[in-house]
Amino acid sequence: MSFSPLIDELIEAFRCLPGVGQKSAQRMSLHLLERNRQGGRKLGESLAEALEKIGNCRYCRNLTEEQSCRICANPARDQTLCCVVETPADVLAIEQAGAYRGVYFVLMGHLSPIDGIGPEQLGIPLLLERVAAAGFRELILACNATVEGDATAWYIAEQLRGAEVEVSRIAHGVPVGGELEYTDGGTLSHAFAGRTAMKQA
Amino acid sequence: MSFSPLIDELIEAFRCLPGVGQKSAQRMSLHLLERNRQGGRKLGESLAEALEKIGNCRYCRNLTEEQSCRICANPARDQTLCCVVETPADVLAIEQAGAYRGVYFVLMGHLSPIDGIGPEQLGIPLLLERVAAAGFRELILACNATVEGDATAWYIAEQLRGAEVEVSRIAHGVPVGGELEYTDGGTLSHAFAGRTAMKQA
Repeated sequence: MSFSPLIDELIEAFRCLPGVGQKSAQRMSLHLLERNRQGGRKLGESLAEALEKIGNCRYCRNLTEEQSCRICANPARDQTLCCVVETPADVLAIEQAGAYRGVYFVLMGHLSPIDGIGPEQLGIPLLLERVAAAGFRELILACNATVEGDATAWYIAEQLRGAEVEVSRIAHGVPVGGELEYTDGGTLSHAFAGRTAMKQA
Repeated sequence: MSFSPLIDELIEAFRCLPGVGQKSAQRMSLHLLERNRQGGRKLGESLAEALEKIGNCRYCRNLTEEQSCRICANPARDQTLCCVVETPADVLAIEQAGAYRGVYFVLMGHLSPIDGIGPEQLGIPLLLERVAAAGFRELILACNATVEGDATAWYIAEQLRGAEVEVSRIAHGVPVGGELEYTDGGTLSHAFAGRTAMKQA
């Protein structure tokens, strides 16, 4: 049994969203049709406009509808410090922490040869050009602390060996508020290897 | 901190979906922009088309893009038996069970005076007209087994008192596969009150 062809099509279309299966897609479709047609129309228009106009920043590859994103275009940011992250959501997380005032470079993924994602797809040639042209004093590699993220960070560091830029990796260790008892072995190993001297006040 | 205006607008638009908060909306927006623009475009088009073309069946008020829905237009269905339900999703659930071969009437909600939902909003005048015109032999009230669903069922039964149609309510009792130990008191009371004689084979 199914609804009418148009409703079936709408349910199928909603399934392209992450974490949305048949039941959720059905619930979303019926909710919009029964109770919130105004919101549905707004969503359709927003989607069409966003997909048409949003591209990548020419400098950092972050998503934006302008030529360059808000952060690259902001003269108050430190343009000599660049943080390399995997996704736009990572940029948001770092901005919300508020501890960083430099610019970013967004890879839009990590190295994954099995999915056909190599250095080209991650814009690493563009990153190397930027490093040469922009005169960064430091490049902070903030790829995820996963096998793929680590491999990506190593690859970038390798490409920049001998370049006039300091390359660093964000610290891995026990998260703030975390208890040693519940911390996994890999994290503890990193925490010990990366220990820092206590400064005397 | 926020993304660009267009991305913020898209995230806000996704929040009209049921069960979608700020984080899920952000995840959906970035997923479509980064990884599935084709699916996003399809979703936008489907939404626009569905919202423009889908209305209510003139007979049963179910959602459809035709004048009358598939079920009302199907000559193989028993047109003298009508089941009253609250939502199109209820129609789907009953159809999937496969135990019913009549037609439906979809209220699109239940009586809820505090939200301004009275008999007019539920199309009850149209239901009464249909009962008079279509010559139903039985009207099965399958509103939800909630306080509001019960009130709606009672209201409809009251309106049809004296009419030439048998009005019934679906049975409430222990669900199939359910164990008495874990069944609530209200359900058990209904199960006892609605007990039926065991037929001898």
